[in-house]
Amino acid sequence: MKKSLIALAILATAAGAAQAQSNVTIYGQVDLQIDKASGRTTSMRAGDNNKLGFRGVEDLGGGLKALFHVEMRFDADTGGTEAAPNRPLFQGQSRVGLQGEFGMIRLGRGLTAVQESAAGYEAWGEARNRASLTSHITANYNSDPLYTGSSTNRWSNGVWYNSPVVGGFQLNATMTTKEPQGTGSPVATPYSISATFNEGPFSIMGGIERNPVDTKFAIVAASFKVMPDLKVMGSYARQSTVRNFDTKGWQLGMNYNVGAGVILAGYGQIKPDNTRSSKRFAIGYEHHLSKRTFLYTDAYRDRNATNSVNSFDIGINHRF
Amino acid sequence: MKKSLIALAILATAAGAAQAQSNVTIYGQVDLQIDKASGRTTSMRAGDNNKLGFRGVEDLGGGLKALFHVEMRFDADTGGTEAAPNRPLFQGQSRVGLQGEFGMIRLGRGLTAVQESAAGYEAWGEARNRASLTSHITANYNSDPLYTGSSTNRWSNGVWYNSPVVGGFQLNATMTTKEPQGTGSPVATPYSISATFNEGPFSIMGGIERNPVDTKFAIVAASFKVMPDLKVMGSYARQSTVRNFDTKGWQLGMNYNVGAGVILAGYGQIKPDNTRSSKRFAIGYEHHLSKRTFLYTDAYRDRNATNSVNSFDIGINHRF
Amino acid sequence: MKKSLIALAILATAAGAAQAQSNVTIYGQVDLQIDKASGRTTSMRAGDNNKLGFRGVEDLGGGLKALFHVEMRFDADTGGTEAAPNRPLFQGQSRVGLQGEFGMIRLGRGLTAVQESAAGYEAWGEARNRASLTSHITANYNSDPLYTGSSTNRWSNGVWYNSPVVGGFQLNATMTTKEPQGTGSPVATPYSISATFNEGPFSIMGGIERNPVDTKFAIVAASFKVMPDLKVMGSYARQSTVRNFDTKGWQLGMNYNVGAGVILAGYGQIKPDNTRSSKRFAIGYEHHLSKRTFLYTDAYRDRNATNSVNSFDIGINHRF
Repeated sequence: MKKSLIALAILATAAGAAQAQSNVTIYGQVDLQIDKASGRTTSMRAGDNNKLGFRGVEDLGGGLKALFHVEMRFDADTGGTEAAPNRPLFQGQSRVGLQGEFGMIRLGRGLTAVQESAAGYEAWGEARNRASLTSHITANYNSDPLYTGSSTNRWSNGVWYNSPVVGGFQLNATMTTKEPQGTGSPVATPYSISATFNEGPFSIMGGIERNPVDTKFAIVAASFKVMPDLKVMGSYARQSTVRNFDTKGWQLGMNYNVGAGVILAGYGQIKPDNTRSSKRFAIGYEHHLSKRTFLYTDAYRDRNATNSVNSFDIGINHRF
Repeated sequence: MKKSLIALAILATAAGAAQAQSNVTIYGQVDLQIDKASGRTTSMRAGDNNKLGFRGVEDLGGGLKALFHVEMRFDADTGGTEAAPNRPLFQGQSRVGLQGEFGMIRLGRGLTAVQESAAGYEAWGEARNRASLTSHITANYNSDPLYTGSSTNRWSNGVWYNSPVVGGFQLNATMTTKEPQGTGSPVATPYSISATFNEGPFSIMGGIERNPVDTKFAIVAASFKVMPDLKVMGSYARQSTVRNFDTKGWQLGMNYNVGAGVILAGYGQIKPDNTRSSKRFAIGYEHHLSKRTFLYTDAYRDRNATNSVNSFDIGINHRF
Repeated sequence: MKKSLIALAILATAAGAAQAQSNVTIYGQVDLQIDKASGRTTSMRAGDNNKLGFRGVEDLGGGLKALFHVEMRFDADTGGTEAAPNRPLFQGQSRVGLQGEFGMIRLGRGLTAVQESAAGYEAWGEARNRASLTSHITANYNSDPLYTGSSTNRWSNGVWYNSPVVGGFQLNATMTTKEPQGTGSPVATPYSISATFNEGPFSIMGGIERNPVDTKFAIVAASFKVMPDLKVMGSYARQSTVRNFDTKGWQLGMNYNVGAGVILAGYGQIKPDNTRSSKRFAIGYEHHLSKRTFLYTDAYRDRNATNSVNSFDIGINHRF
């Protein structure tokens, strides 16, 4: 091993540059789809978030680690930053922190503890513009209503805590300063708390959060591996706001592996107070060319009190 | 080899970070010049595009590859994004696709097929602010007239196809959805098609494209290596728009290698309908310090119906 | 060694990507603090600049090197670019140049020669939002008054020269074109010149600069390592502007290493013409977890003619 390390060092010197790079890992995802909805023109857009991130972990000894994450978001169909100019460059996250036996503490901007835990209980992993049920069907909650860029599930000026996993349990919490999360004045101390439990084929999570304008949100979710190739999942969420007293939503979904492919399906509905519920029925297929790349297609129907829209998409997802 | 791979893995772990990096290549170019034109104050600006790009290729087996490219553009003289805030962060390109025996298919934003093929037939490689003839002399075509950032040769929401090279021939095509390329309403289906042929010292290309506001553009171009150190080239282009029925342009140029240097020279003119032609005579010299770095100087005269401007620049180009 | 190099090459090929990376080093810093000042709400913000940079050095042979630096700045508490949208993406710097026996020449945007030399003579290294004395106490000079983003110590369109170090001496100079540095019209030729001298435990610098709106600035600074673990430092600065004839400032500080910790302390004051002076007394502590990561806390009192403010912060700094 020593020989190789030396060789690497020499290589770096020979290249005339501090070639190190060992401190930073570049990662990301490009996902583009062609989509068509009834009554709308065919368009190209991100199916899942397009991101370019930089992260690093430094071993401080004694089990302690320092870590950082900065993650750009962009719209690969136009080359602009995500929803430019309304969202920050590092819309994905920008956090720094420490990890050890006590768990992990991070400071900065990112998904709330509840939002960070909930994505795994939706058949499409909450991919932004595919058939995913959560964003449309689960109570359409906004963790960050004051942010001008209308980012709906992130907090700025936050502190994150994730406990170690003990007996399958993990506790996660986010708090923020009382600084506005964007425009507007905060009126309440925001908090977001979630707990997850994993045991063999079972996974359960529950979470509650309150955002700066006093909207409260609670969710319970679970998934179960019925067979090695079949996973079913679902969630029930409820939120109360000043404007809309009580909204309830639930969704059920499944992932079924067939060779190099995955069949995804789900159904969900959301019921705001004094309004008829909106429903989505969704089905999709992913064909995996590798662990990092797949082609996909989705079809889904949205029905609300007044009308019904059918959508269809076909796309490519590449992670790096 | 196995030993080294393990060593690398250990190194990564020792560094406390997934040091991989093998998925992403960082590349780019910084080019700055001091330029002086008659009647204008001396200024500093990019000679060629300043870019910082991230790209990767994943081998999927069986000759199939997945690939992505995201490429920022910036103005190194001020540190801002190119023409900030009018252009997207990844103004260079943002594309994802597959490559195989069938050729290459990419989705996203980038140069049109015609524009991507034409740059090789101009003595300065169409460097933005040097003496290059195309942007000034060839019909000053705008592939993307609706984009608010006045980017002149890119499409968003596009699909690119490049055929395999067969007997020296290659076919390239770009189509887009009917989404606006920026502001404004599309009125026509855009397309861009080019063909190139390379055989020994000869290279020929032809292309035709129609942009969303129904401007049509056609170009033929050729280059010829007279001697190992001497290449001559030229192009003829014609466009018709709603506003300006017919504009014609042509240019001739040469690159002559002298030791570590290259002499560049060219002449071209553009003739819009009912207007006297504009002409440019240009000469330049590049001194290559390495394959990645050169110093350069250019002198050129622009003459139109009413006046004549002499320009001079001196600069440095560094690729990484 | 040869074996490892080959292994690396094979690895790169096996990964299906030009894995090179040897041309570019990614570097940066994330620093976040919780701060509280009397009369203000608790907030989270950058303690020192948050940056993500890309740099490379190319060996051209014969002692000559080409180099580039592009450095983003961002606010990790919100994920946006620094002071978005008022500053350029590469607010840190964007420069390209050559280095050799003659010294170093760079073109682009960056800190002026004086500002680049002065940071080492302040106890906090001029960290933006910590207790550092310079920005508050030394004449609050603005190298770049015309830039709309109110960046205070950078020039665009600049040429930098740094001499080789001869007998401990180094000379540094920055000039710019007469292009506006942002909005507004330049009225004077800007220049910035500094000289530094290092000999054993002593370090001295002096500098003078004139910015485009005819503000002049002069500074002398020195540091001395009293003991291996104790360094004292100070500076005296003076500026004259059109609006404010004469402002004087000075500061004294010290760094004292205690095991893995550093105690920082300082006092300074600034005295504009016809105004009573402002004063800051500051103390801080850094606990280094590694060469790249430390936790810190600072306490400082600012007193001016009318009132007095106490501030306190606690934060984390991670470099990569």
